[in-house]
Amino acid sequence: MDLAALIEKLREFARERDWERYHTPKNLAMAMSVEMAELVEHFQWLTPEESLAVQNDPAKLTAIGEEMADVLLYLVRMADVLGVDLEQAALRKIGLNAIKYPPVPQKAKS
Amino acid sequence: MDLAALIEKLREFARERDWERYHTPKNLAMAMSVEMAELVEHFQWLTPEESLAVQNDPAKLTAIGEEMADVLLYLVRMADVLGVDLEQAALRKIGLNAIKYPPVPQKAKS
Amino acid sequence: MDLAALIEKLREFARERDWERYHTPKNLAMAMSVEMAELVEHFQWLTPEESLAVQNDPAKLTAIGEEMADVLLYLVRMADVLGVDLEQAALRKIGLNAIKYPPVPQKAKS
Amino acid sequence: MDLAALIEKLREFARERDWERYHTPKNLAMAMSVEMAELVEHFQWLTPEESLAVQNDPAKLTAIGEEMADVLLYLVRMADVLGVDLEQAALRKIGLNAIKYPPVPQKAKS
Repeated sequence: MDLAALIEKLREFARERDWERYHTPKNLAMAMSVEMAELVEHFQWLTPEESLAVQNDPAKLTAIGEEMADVLLYLVRMADVLGVDLEQAALRKIGLNAIKYPPVPQKAKS
Repeated sequence: MDLAALIEKLREFARERDWERYHTPKNLAMAMSVEMAELVEHFQWLTPEESLAVQNDPAKLTAIGEEMADVLLYLVRMADVLGVDLEQAALRKIGLNAIKYPPVPQKAKS
Repeated sequence: MDLAALIEKLREFARERDWERYHTPKNLAMAMSVEMAELVEHFQWLTPEESLAVQNDPAKLTAIGEEMADVLLYLVRMADVLGVDLEQAALRKIGLNAIKYPPVPQKAKS
Repeated sequence: MDLAALIEKLREFARERDWERYHTPKNLAMAMSVEMAELVEHFQWLTPEESLAVQNDPAKLTAIGEEMADVLLYLVRMADVLGVDLEQAALRKIGLNAIKYPPVPQKAKS
């Protein structure tokens, strides 16, 4: 994924619409959480099995992909506004998670 | 951002911990929304100005970057489980947004 | 508020629509979080001052009241399904909060 | 539930801690959504059946009741700040839902 290009597109998008003043981290966090809920909404009444079967429903998958995109776009925009390196943060977090949850063989979850 | 490498890392991470059975889209959406709220929490009592000033506080920025990473990691994992092309979805959504919100000069928002 | 009557209404509502099987605590938590986000959405781009001024806008206030009601209804329904006494839990939590945050004179918050 | 008494307690709680200035509807919506996510977190990896079985686990039920209380307390506080009559809004919403979802016999949901 060309993150730098995505950042630039979103920066320009905000500038052309005079939206920069709305894009405080506080507002972006709120807006992102609303998009997240629109993603959650697709799965709220589904059984776990039905939620997996969604991958075989192209129309639903497109709709879900749009909500996922909305979350990603706000995440990338917030990273730009705050000066966070998203990729570095993600790789660092995987490392922290690997320490927190060692890959020991776990056959059951209590 | 090397999305393919990130997908592979997360796939392996889940496999090594026997977590694949928990990673239904329904569960991943819930877990992602919880991480999202941990990001929101950083900003809940801040003024808009204070939320912008966070970029000058390295310790806070690292903590916020971790929450942003958590959201991204679940988003990437969900995309893999569902077979969604995140980058394509993001670019498509920018196009749709450009149609929905034309870049007309708007001096004020009612 | 007549909580017992509200519980009974919602119980009957679910029964009459054959929705009881969907009303697991997991699903109700998801649905409630979606309604919560619809409440958040009303405030996402507002300044703190604008969010307070909403109380002078009857149409907006009615719309916001509807989202607040949605959250309350799912909360009451979940309490019924799980057998939680909401009022007792609320009073208990106020007591816990009073211990956690003593009412010392605090002139400023850093 | 004695809603008037609850409102008064929360009003006094905020006043004694000089928290009134933080309690804008925007901030309360954010804080409430964070508490909501703490409720969701209890259920994120559970199967639907496990989420129902929670009612037989007193310790877990107390913890869940606390998160439900947090959501309720912020909801009541927001209603007070905005001047919304929560009970009236809830009853009105049940009426609207009854129109939107008629209690026709539905044997299956697609």
